[in-house]
Amino acid sequence: MQQGTSPAIALLTDFGIRDNFVGVMKGVMTRIAPGTTFIDLTHEIPPQDVSAGAWVLGTAYRYFPAGSVFVCVVDPGVGSTRDAVAIHAGDWYFVGPDNGLFHFVLAEQPVHAAVKLTNPAFHLPTVSATFQGRDLFSPVGAHIAAGRHLLELGEPVPADSLRRLDLPGPVLKPDRIEADVSYVDHFGNLVTSIAFAMLPDFFDWPVVRLLLPAKQLIISERRRFFADQGDDAQPFLYVDSSGYIAIAMRNTSAARSLNIGRGEAVTLIWRNT
Amino acid sequence: MQQGTSPAIALLTDFGIRDNFVGVMKGVMTRIAPGTTFIDLTHEIPPQDVSAGAWVLGTAYRYFPAGSVFVCVVDPGVGSTRDAVAIHAGDWYFVGPDNGLFHFVLAEQPVHAAVKLTNPAFHLPTVSATFQGRDLFSPVGAHIAAGRHLLELGEPVPADSLRRLDLPGPVLKPDRIEADVSYVDHFGNLVTSIAFAMLPDFFDWPVVRLLLPAKQLIISERRRFFADQGDDAQPFLYVDSSGYIAIAMRNTSAARSLNIGRGEAVTLIWRNT
Amino acid sequence: MQQGTSPAIALLTDFGIRDNFVGVMKGVMTRIAPGTTFIDLTHEIPPQDVSAGAWVLGTAYRYFPAGSVFVCVVDPGVGSTRDAVAIHAGDWYFVGPDNGLFHFVLAEQPVHAAVKLTNPAFHLPTVSATFQGRDLFSPVGAHIAAGRHLLELGEPVPADSLRRLDLPGPVLKPDRIEADVSYVDHFGNLVTSIAFAMLPDFFDWPVVRLLLPAKQLIISERRRFFADQGDDAQPFLYVDSSGYIAIAMRNTSAARSLNIGRGEAVTLIWRNT
Repeated sequence: MQQGTSPAIALLTDFGIRDNFVGVMKGVMTRIAPGTTFIDLTHEIPPQDVSAGAWVLGTAYRYFPAGSVFVCVVDPGVGSTRDAVAIHAGDWYFVGPDNGLFHFVLAEQPVHAAVKLTNPAFHLPTVSATFQGRDLFSPVGAHIAAGRHLLELGEPVPADSLRRLDLPGPVLKPDRIEADVSYVDHFGNLVTSIAFAMLPDFFDWPVVRLLLPAKQLIISERRRFFADQGDDAQPFLYVDSSGYIAIAMRNTSAARSLNIGRGEAVTLIWRNT
Repeated sequence: MQQGTSPAIALLTDFGIRDNFVGVMKGVMTRIAPGTTFIDLTHEIPPQDVSAGAWVLGTAYRYFPAGSVFVCVVDPGVGSTRDAVAIHAGDWYFVGPDNGLFHFVLAEQPVHAAVKLTNPAFHLPTVSATFQGRDLFSPVGAHIAAGRHLLELGEPVPADSLRRLDLPGPVLKPDRIEADVSYVDHFGNLVTSIAFAMLPDFFDWPVVRLLLPAKQLIISERRRFFADQGDDAQPFLYVDSSGYIAIAMRNTSAARSLNIGRGEAVTLIWRNT
Repeated sequence: MQQGTSPAIALLTDFGIRDNFVGVMKGVMTRIAPGTTFIDLTHEIPPQDVSAGAWVLGTAYRYFPAGSVFVCVVDPGVGSTRDAVAIHAGDWYFVGPDNGLFHFVLAEQPVHAAVKLTNPAFHLPTVSATFQGRDLFSPVGAHIAAGRHLLELGEPVPADSLRRLDLPGPVLKPDRIEADVSYVDHFGNLVTSIAFAMLPDFFDWPVVRLLLPAKQLIISERRRFFADQGDDAQPFLYVDSSGYIAIAMRNTSAARSLNIGRGEAVTLIWRNT
């Protein structure tokens, strides 16, 4: 980081962009940490869909500078007994509800410190029952960006008590991988939970087939590039920029054409000789 | 504000985010006030809906640092005889058409100065008939952020001549409050015009009922928290983060489920012993 | 530019705002050029619609400060043989695929330098086949903002080899102009390819008619201001803020009311005495 530059604050919510919620959060933060660069990851997480939020955060945070603060609010339990937390994991800081939103971060990064946000000195004077993004998570995130230490913000919690999601995840069997569609992007590409890193020889095997039993569909074409020659009407497999095996159709939405959404079960089989 | 940090410029428009309108406004402003932090309040005000814009601004501005500049463009009368104004009210600056967009700010804050934007030295060289957001309001807003005094920008206008909206507003009768739905948020929550500050004992009264005569609907459940136990199929009353009494249904859109929109008449009755 | 202020980076893509694509690009850039101001031109270009992207960029870039960097990704050929380029044209820098996206910039500005992005030292360590916005265009754009010279980024290409679009464009005949609708904005206004600069006397001629043969429609009313008196049910001609002759209806979407979209043929005729 350049001398004197505040770290960036990245935001991820399910608040949408129609209301003033996100703007108000930035107003609160800029009062505490003037000159901060705000980066919107997205505010279009489907309402209260914690696992979609976890996936979108999990495939993004690595690209941010060390010291960046992620203020994340997808929070069906706002006002309930779930904790509000701040976590220092890997090179980054994460602030939000302890409801599984940090699942992938916790799975992938060492946790250096984690606290419950129990110190009201770092919250707005009144914390509403319905908008803790404004009243609690934003001021805490801005105080971290402004240099406060996590231990000032509340009482430490052990890393292994932080909430994880109960995700189906890919299951490796001797002759196949059973997995599911974990994300559908803006272009209608269907991203599975099968990491390319599990199958580094994916493009070299003589035969690969992705079965979608409920749709009685088998996809066997693999492409390294979207622009590869091929039949535009046929779905194909590629490695998504998130690092996972995915299904696309060129120049159209695979999700819409194949009528497939998040959660669809998929099975990958292959012959490697 | 930190030494050397420009104040933030917040934007509120009905321009949407598909076109380049908002980006161009920021381009114009960053030329005049480089390094400024831009904060989007929203660009999704329904086209030309001045009172929706006024509400969204009115529930947001207080959270911004002193000295922030709000550039606001919801302007059905662009090119007509309505004035273009800049207002210093409370701790903030507001720039936009004088058409009621600043209704709540004017109702809530003392006006220190207000001017008509008649000095072309602070506009773009050519002011188009259709995009004063770019040609007039943006450069003026950026010049204020860069430190210009309001009186350089044009001729003073008296605060009480600034345009207010003719809003129904809540009417307090001896035994009830007659009001309406003033905003529907992204989650489908229905925010009424009844301020919680009018009814600080709202949660303590033995009985509270919100009547929606046109829908033959009576809502009597009150919740402090969204996550409170209760029947998900039933609408309930809560205090919205904007400070107003509102109607929600848990895990669904009350607006869609109840088929209620902005302007719907509501009557609040109660028994306080 | 103020001493010590980084130039702004403007972004234009067809990535939408639901996914984390745009946020990740900014994460990558803020790591290389901390403190940069990011300005979103739009991320809602229709998927892979290069000519819409070119138009939106072409009507925006002039309003940005000298030295601004435009990172533009509308890229149906990602992973194919189209080149990735950086261009210094007029007072600005442009980074993206060489597929026609810079058509209007190249038509309007002198090119001082242009390079193919062949130097991997300025890319992310791994360049994916599907997200060059993140892996290639973002780091290159940030390095330019941070002061790198274009010639460090790759091998020079001659300006006249850069890809232009094959646009119909307006055709001036002795007694008419044949043109088309080149853009439909958020309000449903229909912007034609006829520049007002071609017809500076547009408002002074006794008669002007815009014919839409396929719709058997003739529009002859001209308005300088949207707020001019007139029949709200009738379409009229005005000069759009982009500088082109356009069709609007007051308080409604001309595109929807007239069922007209991009590409619709129009013919302008006039009598100038």
